[in-house]
Amino acid sequence: MSRYWSKVARRLEPYIPGEQPKDKMYIKLNTNELPYPPSPRVLAAMKAAVNESLRLYPPPACDELRTSIARYYGLNPAQVFVGNGSDEVLAFAFMAFFNPGEPILFPDITYSFYPVYADLFNIDYQLVPLAEDFSLPVERFFTGNGGIIFPNPNAPTGRYIGLAAIEEILKKNTERIVIVDEAYIDFGGQSAAGLIEKYPNLLVVQTLSKSRGLAGLRVGFALGQADLIEGLRRVKNSVNSYTLDRVALAGAQAAFEDEAYFRETRRKVIATREETVARLVPLGFTVIPSQANFIFIRHRSVSARHLYQQLREKGILVRYFDKPRINEFLRVSIGSDAEMSAFLKTLAEII
Amino acid sequence: MSRYWSKVARRLEPYIPGEQPKDKMYIKLNTNELPYPPSPRVLAAMKAAVNESLRLYPPPACDELRTSIARYYGLNPAQVFVGNGSDEVLAFAFMAFFNPGEPILFPDITYSFYPVYADLFNIDYQLVPLAEDFSLPVERFFTGNGGIIFPNPNAPTGRYIGLAAIEEILKKNTERIVIVDEAYIDFGGQSAAGLIEKYPNLLVVQTLSKSRGLAGLRVGFALGQADLIEGLRRVKNSVNSYTLDRVALAGAQAAFEDEAYFRETRRKVIATREETVARLVPLGFTVIPSQANFIFIRHRSVSARHLYQQLREKGILVRYFDKPRINEFLRVSIGSDAEMSAFLKTLAEII
Repeated sequence: MSRYWSKVARRLEPYIPGEQPKDKMYIKLNTNELPYPPSPRVLAAMKAAVNESLRLYPPPACDELRTSIARYYGLNPAQVFVGNGSDEVLAFAFMAFFNPGEPILFPDITYSFYPVYADLFNIDYQLVPLAEDFSLPVERFFTGNGGIIFPNPNAPTGRYIGLAAIEEILKKNTERIVIVDEAYIDFGGQSAAGLIEKYPNLLVVQTLSKSRGLAGLRVGFALGQADLIEGLRRVKNSVNSYTLDRVALAGAQAAFEDEAYFRETRRKVIATREETVARLVPLGFTVIPSQANFIFIRHRSVSARHLYQQLREKGILVRYFDKPRINEFLRVSIGSDAEMSAFLKTLAEII
Repeated sequence: MSRYWSKVARRLEPYIPGEQPKDKMYIKLNTNELPYPPSPRVLAAMKAAVNESLRLYPPPACDELRTSIARYYGLNPAQVFVGNGSDEVLAFAFMAFFNPGEPILFPDITYSFYPVYADLFNIDYQLVPLAEDFSLPVERFFTGNGGIIFPNPNAPTGRYIGLAAIEEILKKNTERIVIVDEAYIDFGGQSAAGLIEKYPNLLVVQTLSKSRGLAGLRVGFALGQADLIEGLRRVKNSVNSYTLDRVALAGAQAAFEDEAYFRETRRKVIATREETVARLVPLGFTVIPSQANFIFIRHRSVSARHLYQQLREKGILVRYFDKPRINEFLRVSIGSDAEMSAFLKTLAEII
């Protein structure tokens, strides 16, 4: 604490990302990265963008990338906003659409960055308790609120709700923005992007960090009707005129233009996930049904903290949240088949 | 305007960066970019970073880059904060160090992003009028305030104040943060970085966009005592865990490790600036003394608006601000010798 910190800086409890220890080589199943490299076309496009024009500012509106993303989703570029990872996009959305004094709603078990944004921007919030099985009680979002945000699939549970349920929420909240955070949507869910024409209150947020294998590139985006996107642009242009560098723009655009590679890596992750689940059950684990590139698991007798610590000692990182309701669970990213075999083997030894 | 916009989004008047028209090729003297490409070592380091590890998140604390910057300035890494361009760093600093209800001070003629940040974060401000010749009236910063920010050299004037004047301001404001925005310091000024050990209330902000020729890379940084840097990290970690991508980190670090290239390009810009000034005076221009990579000029009889429009028509972009006190001036970035010759020739034709 410094006497020079603002009131905001004093009250913050920053988000803590997954650890990146460097004391030895780990099998890293703790930050939901893709186990496969980005598309070779992405790497080629990025290398080509490493050139003398880096002396010039990037295009501030990112028209070409927005056009590629729009084409992929059957939208127009005015319905696409891009930013420095979906975390930045979410932060801008909190500023653009939520107001102090008008409490927003999000699940009690969810992406733990939401309360951090809320505290930073002085937005009140009410937690909507998930059901015992971590399913989303849709009707709890029908009450008066200042806006709604939830991930689909949810994190860290991996649970997915279908578009019919999302439409119900949208219809019951026509005066408020509903943000569907689809960081993990590509691993089995159906995006709400197709609902955008119908619902002016829908904002869909996605990232290239997970399904596109580009966590190291920092690109995320939002989809919504043009006036919502304009709201995000106003906030962004009041913070930083150019949030995406030239190389990131080139790589992100190439990612949307190599659909075959995307489909293949996604398919492999889903197959590995299902195989992993099938092998965890006989070991005594409960696995929450997941449509994400991670699973949320609990052992019938061994504590999650113990498993986390033992795995870490044996060179395998998973995510453990020491929080009410979920402190008996581990969140495990889906790695390659070899990584998951090592994980399962080590787990069997510990148990 | 959308009914879904927050109160903040409604009241914003976003910053407008220099135009990037695409209707034809322009000589671009309007956004203070370096006329020379980044160091070849920077490009090589970036190409090497375009690899399969892009699937992994970047190091969130950016230790290696911070170590390189710290070494360059004789500081330690805990005294360095890095971000997505100095604009993002400045936005975080407004959040971390300024409070609503405690008006901050900045010059009436200055970087026009400051009032935008202030509006966004609900920070009140008072404008300190520059003297007639655009010099900074140091004693006007001795009054009670909630913090101080100014560029040195100032933008868009190019005027520089020495470290003695900055120390006076620091000594008269020991309870408040003084941010010295040194975006243009490398073109003839002396950085206040050397004062950091002595003044716990000093934050120095810099960018790689100008003197390092990396506007397209989006890297800026702040220097200050460790507790100030920690305040910035708290804000950043409440917005976005990873603001710099792996390729940008590699390029920025290499930029600080090729000092010879840096010195040579800087020397060339300064030489071209002095040559340009010498040729403008006989054309009837007043030139504000500049220690930046741009000059602020006024013609004795031809209006700035006319010159701006005519230059634009003839394929040369400069910056014109239609604002009180400066609407008879043009801000002209220092390009290559060939670009400046073309600029001077066209100017002579217009006049």
